[in-house]
Amino acid sequence: MTQPTAPGSRESPTPAWELLLPASSAPARARGRALQSALRDAVRSGRLAPDTRLPSSRDLARDLGVSRGLVTEAYEQLTAEGYLRAGRGAGTWVGEAARAAAPGASDLAPRPSTGARADFVAGTPDLSLFPRAAWSAAQRAVLLDLPHHALGYPDPRGLPRLRTALAELLVRRRGVVADPERIIVCSGVTQAVTLLGIVLRARGQHAIGVENPGSPQFEDLFATVGSRAVRLPMDEEGLAMGPLRESGVRTVITTPSHHFPSGIAYSAPRRTQLLSWARRVGGLIVEDDYDGDFRYDRAPVGSLQGLDPEHVAYTGSVSKSLAPGLRLGWLIVPDALTDDVVARKRYMDLGNPALDQAVLARFVERGDYDRHLRRCQRTYKERRDALVAALHEHLPGTEVSGIAAGLHAIATLPDRCGPHQELLDRCAASGVSVRPLGHYGGGADGGMSLVIGYAHLPPARIAEGVRLLAQAALRARFP
Amino acid sequence: MTQPTAPGSRESPTPAWELLLPASSAPARARGRALQSALRDAVRSGRLAPDTRLPSSRDLARDLGVSRGLVTEAYEQLTAEGYLRAGRGAGTWVGEAARAAAPGASDLAPRPSTGARADFVAGTPDLSLFPRAAWSAAQRAVLLDLPHHALGYPDPRGLPRLRTALAELLVRRRGVVADPERIIVCSGVTQAVTLLGIVLRARGQHAIGVENPGSPQFEDLFATVGSRAVRLPMDEEGLAMGPLRESGVRTVITTPSHHFPSGIAYSAPRRTQLLSWARRVGGLIVEDDYDGDFRYDRAPVGSLQGLDPEHVAYTGSVSKSLAPGLRLGWLIVPDALTDDVVARKRYMDLGNPALDQAVLARFVERGDYDRHLRRCQRTYKERRDALVAALHEHLPGTEVSGIAAGLHAIATLPDRCGPHQELLDRCAASGVSVRPLGHYGGGADGGMSLVIGYAHLPPARIAEGVRLLAQAALRARFP
Repeated sequence: MTQPTAPGSRESPTPAWELLLPASSAPARARGRALQSALRDAVRSGRLAPDTRLPSSRDLARDLGVSRGLVTEAYEQLTAEGYLRAGRGAGTWVGEAARAAAPGASDLAPRPSTGARADFVAGTPDLSLFPRAAWSAAQRAVLLDLPHHALGYPDPRGLPRLRTALAELLVRRRGVVADPERIIVCSGVTQAVTLLGIVLRARGQHAIGVENPGSPQFEDLFATVGSRAVRLPMDEEGLAMGPLRESGVRTVITTPSHHFPSGIAYSAPRRTQLLSWARRVGGLIVEDDYDGDFRYDRAPVGSLQGLDPEHVAYTGSVSKSLAPGLRLGWLIVPDALTDDVVARKRYMDLGNPALDQAVLARFVERGDYDRHLRRCQRTYKERRDALVAALHEHLPGTEVSGIAAGLHAIATLPDRCGPHQELLDRCAASGVSVRPLGHYGGGADGGMSLVIGYAHLPPARIAEGVRLLAQAALRARFP
Repeated sequence: MTQPTAPGSRESPTPAWELLLPASSAPARARGRALQSALRDAVRSGRLAPDTRLPSSRDLARDLGVSRGLVTEAYEQLTAEGYLRAGRGAGTWVGEAARAAAPGASDLAPRPSTGARADFVAGTPDLSLFPRAAWSAAQRAVLLDLPHHALGYPDPRGLPRLRTALAELLVRRRGVVADPERIIVCSGVTQAVTLLGIVLRARGQHAIGVENPGSPQFEDLFATVGSRAVRLPMDEEGLAMGPLRESGVRTVITTPSHHFPSGIAYSAPRRTQLLSWARRVGGLIVEDDYDGDFRYDRAPVGSLQGLDPEHVAYTGSVSKSLAPGLRLGWLIVPDALTDDVVARKRYMDLGNPALDQAVLARFVERGDYDRHLRRCQRTYKERRDALVAALHEHLPGTEVSGIAAGLHAIATLPDRCGPHQELLDRCAASGVSVRPLGHYGGGADGGMSLVIGYAHLPPARIAEGVRLLAQAALRARFP
């Protein structure tokens, strides 16, 4: 059998050529591909060292029991690709171009479950409520009647049909001023805020105000686009006006309909003061309407944006209403920013996927979206009531707030529940995942306020979780 | 009937209150919503001017023929939202917070068709070949068996199942070194290049080399992320090495398997020289494998990335193989850049939509993708042959190049075909859309080279288009 000839004293392992190509009854073309692939692997891995001389095509063909043409073709192909080189004269040699890849960790197993017996971490809707059958029907219908050209490069602002459907939806449900021409379909609130951050940074705004406490993601996000998040304190009515005015920022991100995490709605005077501030400084209020659809005891508060669309940018998504995995949201910005935001969106991804947009458009148009929201609203209200009842039963004296809306509540435990950190440690040990209010900023939280996400848990799990929480709380006191 | 009382001499039009709410037999709740919505609209549009006093709830309820509670609720709701304000004493007034939106252009009609009788502009595959039935079946299957948690916030690198499927695909079809851990699912080549541009800019690289002629989008793209595209000349073997070395850039975007638009494949020596350059300067070659799947007369050239994955970033998408509207692509970067790119991807969109990724994974896993590529390959080869035959028949003497691969060809017309601009004008007048090679850069194109995209046109349209092109070309000579 033919052995490779390595020039000089190089001690490269000498492969048995026939191992390149396991005996097979596959057709010649498949065997040719397999040979090329095996040769590439051998060069890359270093099994065939640079400057190794390969056997002649005639010899290798005989060894492998394949036609000579197949070997010649493989040599030519790999020479064209740079793995091999044709030497002076007749020989073929391993080239020096290939370099082995660094071995990568190969752990692609799904992240392990937290193993929590009750996971009260806020932020996710109940994914088991996702309307799979209706969504599937909408997908099928869209593929049946979408014109071919709609599969081409999309409008970076979004599918016109979806923008029209969203305008109707947001005007009706959220009191937004939403001309379809002004809506930009995006992949969610994160992308919306990133787009705004980049555009404002280019206009010289290096600092953006954020609520404190508030969503922790914005600090990293603004750092990534080259600007800085300025934490601004809240009071009982909303963002405190004094510190806002003194901060010097001209843009602030807010959750006026349902502040995250405290759950308050901004008061009417505060909404007006905020708008006055924006007009005076020529500023921008970003209204993050992250869970605007779920209100239990009163009608939803209309959007701030509806009051002054030239000073408020409005953003929301289907992440809480349908599923975060869809990556579909919307952004409405003042006229003066629209072109810049669309230009950034264009270079970020050219626009959202067309089929998904058409499916959501159909889903909204036919009332499926409203039906789904009603169903979620009923379910989540029931769960909220279960949470309140369980806290009342197992931890009497607990003050529950922020429960008029949304997917989470604030539970402030009575003083007798022992030191804060000890309580949290005991919760963790009992398999109860829960975050203190202080996790979201707001300075030292002397009290025992916990942010309890309940919407993703069935009532029985909520009751069981609160029972475990109460055990942990009482043990923290009486060890 | 009650009329609004405007204080002072303000000449605001005085609305007839009953017009707020058309007579209706709708249930009370719906009428309440309609009233709130009508009041909001009236305030926003200025029909109800600031400081206008509203009728008492009792009077308005009587005028509208609704319950007083319904009016009270509407007043309370709009006061909470800032549209109205409660005055001292008993009255309710229009607030000053609301400001009318600037009227937006409302032209959402789809862009008019170019009306071209033959559209030879390159860049789009035949969208009518999109495998709708198979894609629909994959969507349905995915929705049937996707676990709930997969609908949550995605891994910004992409669904593990898709990364595994793509790794297998790219290793097999394109000779890429593609550990699933190293693949980043993104929304296409534009996003891939934007991500790299941002990451490299943050590391101090303000200039990125691009091929000239080449894809025109990169100049604007790099300007958007704050860096600069440096146009580097091509020669017959690929990117010219001298100008590249002298330019001082450390990153260059290339199309080595099938240069756009000339259609050449980089020679083996040039591939090696390019890699040597990258190693010497610690640089990066970005391999844009935009149409790597379509090769007609020989096996596809393996990727450059396979030779040195630590100096070559590889990117591609399904835009040419399935449809640009899917916005699904991939990016494989050297280890040293992976974390930064993933961090940027996270803040750009948190990751690609989960369902689309699962559908493509299934599509690849089950061989549907390979089947579809084979079908396209056959169809496009037939069209390429039709183009060559038609040019031979109607414009003998035309030199056709770049036809071994891809979705377009270069046709260099014989000298007798009259001045360049006159030919293009006549083409346009005859309804033939076609771009000269000079459109993509490369300096003054003295010749008559046209870039002809053929893949999206059936053979009969191609033949007819070439006939019209020939008429225009000959008339340009003999008016």
